Amino acid sequence: MKGFKAVILAGGSGERFWPLSTPERPKQFLSVFGGESLIRQSVSRLGGLAGPGDTFVVTSHALAAATVAELPELDRSHVVGEPMRRDTGPAVALGVGIAAPEGDPVVGFFPSDHLIGSPARFRATLRKAIALARKGESIVVIGIMPSYPATAFGYVDPVKGRFVEKPDLAKAKRYLKAGYLWNAGMFIARASVFRRALELCAPALAGLAAPGGVSVRALGAAYEPLPRISFDYAVMEHVSRGVGGLGVAVVPGDFGWDDVGGYGAFDKYYPHDADGNVREGECRAVDSSGNICVARAASISLVGVKNLVVVTTRDAVLVADKSHLSEMKRLFK
Amino acid sequence: MKGFKAVILAGGSGERFWPLSTPERPKQFLSVFGGESLIRQSVSRLGGLAGPGDTFVVTSHALAAATVAELPELDRSHVVGEPMRRDTGPAVALGVGIAAPEGDPVVGFFPSDHLIGSPARFRATLRKAIALARKGESIVVIGIMPSYPATAFGYVDPVKGRFVEKPDLAKAKRYLKAGYLWNAGMFIARASVFRRALELCAPALAGLAAPGGVSVRALGAAYEPLPRISFDYAVMEHVSRGVGGLGVAVVPGDFGWDDVGGYGAFDKYYPHDADGNVREGECRAVDSSGNICVARAASISLVGVKNLVVVTTRDAVLVADKSHLSEMKRLFK
Repeated sequence: MKGFKAVILAGGSGERFWPLSTPERPKQFLSVFGGESLIRQSVSRLGGLAGPGDTFVVTSHALAAATVAELPELDRSHVVGEPMRRDTGPAVALGVGIAAPEGDPVVGFFPSDHLIGSPARFRATLRKAIALARKGESIVVIGIMPSYPATAFGYVDPVKGRFVEKPDLAKAKRYLKAGYLWNAGMFIARASVFRRALELCAPALAGLAAPGGVSVRALGAAYEPLPRISFDYAVMEHVSRGVGGLGVAVVPGDFGWDDVGGYGAFDKYYPHDADGNVREGECRAVDSSGNICVARAASISLVGVKNLVVVTTRDAVLVADKSHLSEMKRLFK
Repeated sequence: MKGFKAVILAGGSGERFWPLSTPERPKQFLSVFGGESLIRQSVSRLGGLAGPGDTFVVTSHALAAATVAELPELDRSHVVGEPMRRDTGPAVALGVGIAAPEGDPVVGFFPSDHLIGSPARFRATLRKAIALARKGESIVVIGIMPSYPATAFGYVDPVKGRFVEKPDLAKAKRYLKAGYLWNAGMFIARASVFRRALELCAPALAGLAAPGGVSVRALGAAYEPLPRISFDYAVMEHVSRGVGGLGVAVVPGDFGWDDVGGYGAFDKYYPHDADGNVREGECRAVDSSGNICVARAASISLVGVKNLVVVTTRDAVLVADKSHLSEMKRLFK
């Protein structure tokens, strides 16, 4: 689509699918769902709207080479590695810089590690969002039609264009009744709108968005003093309050979106045996039920266990209770 | 000790310590307790009573080479591999044949995969047993002083010399009150007494006990028609009823005996961390307690799990609930 540039944000850390994913091969490189890796799918589903010449990736310095290898059709200069992790605020700013070195294209930002069940419906939604972004002074957000009162996502009020943080369950239920949508981290706007918003709301980040971005040699010095801040906090919360006459427009989407947030996704997308176990690879189960068993290296034998996640790779074995998956992050401290 | 020959019975199948032990490296080759392998310890603790020239091993054909490698001081001809598994009845008969090709020595049979805390006390007990065997018409049994009402062992009544099978808990408690001892599968008698007992009680096995045993070439044909039968059932139960004027004599022993029956032994012999986990190798635990974690290959990370046995080798991972360890045998059907 002429005048549209896509930027894939690929800065995942790989903790929630460890050891299948690792800091060296985070979630976006996983290929468990649908054969292709999640980042490969993220690029492919833009087909027709943004081809390789119009697609960019902002990732970490350490993952740049692996990303180029995974997406060989992209020009190497379209894959930029951030020198350090500073959350999505700086990443979006840098993305605007590299994707819009000239002119005033519409730039869209998309996570690299989400799953979308219907790419065709996604593209139809995105077309609407691009059209809306092109004519206005808004940052357009694709809001996902929620299927349950999730507490793991932020929400967006489609009428007021207001962002709200991850709620507790009671709030989430109220949000659903009120017609709020999930914030899936997809932002679409003209480059000039992004730049103006950054200057107004997060001037420290605005330099990264300058046409042509920042040279690779200067990136380290540019990132070092930056705070870790998400684009939601740095910019969207302010814009949604009408700062500088800018606004948020919400395009609802219903295309089978899933953030593939952790091992629970296996229960969602994989078939189960008669005892409710999901098995991949050589997994044997005796008197065991409700387990997720993924054998990528040594075979796994389960005896008398319930509701566990058991994963083997050549280097590591994870044995976690499904109800304690949120504690996995303590393994990485 | 002059006129004494020791036969180590080493026919284990390796199921209860799988995957640390395997059919190719069953329990007697494990070295988890005390550094040396259990079979190595079994031979070493006979030192002073039976040296290499007086020590024999009956194992399976498949394990003969590994056994010779583990016990290089033994003459190769002292390690005999049974062509098929027929339980301890035929193994004892064959052991008498190879250990007593001439004369009428006292022959003692010992399991290869048990643990003995005090080898010195064991040897003192064994000396008594050998002396008793030398002068009499009895098969001498070393009865272990029980430390709890075990249901996993057979018992022997030391007064009547009677054998009783593995009891339920109520019976086991009665046996303890009555002064019964554990049957640890150690039998000591003159070769001539073993031979007479076999002829009277299990004539099908008597040929194996002929002086010099059976040639290796003839073993296959000799074993093929034999039933699977333990020495306890084939011979000791009859002898304990006075068949042919033979009898059973019981020498009590208290030398820290343990049959190392399964992973529970790790809880018994290894130190625990503050959360009651036993860890060997690279094991991390988050909010996890009461686990036995043995990492021989890939590292193990436990998250929110309790009372599991988790073992990794290069080829296999076991995740079993401690209360379901008896079901492990279903993995091998």
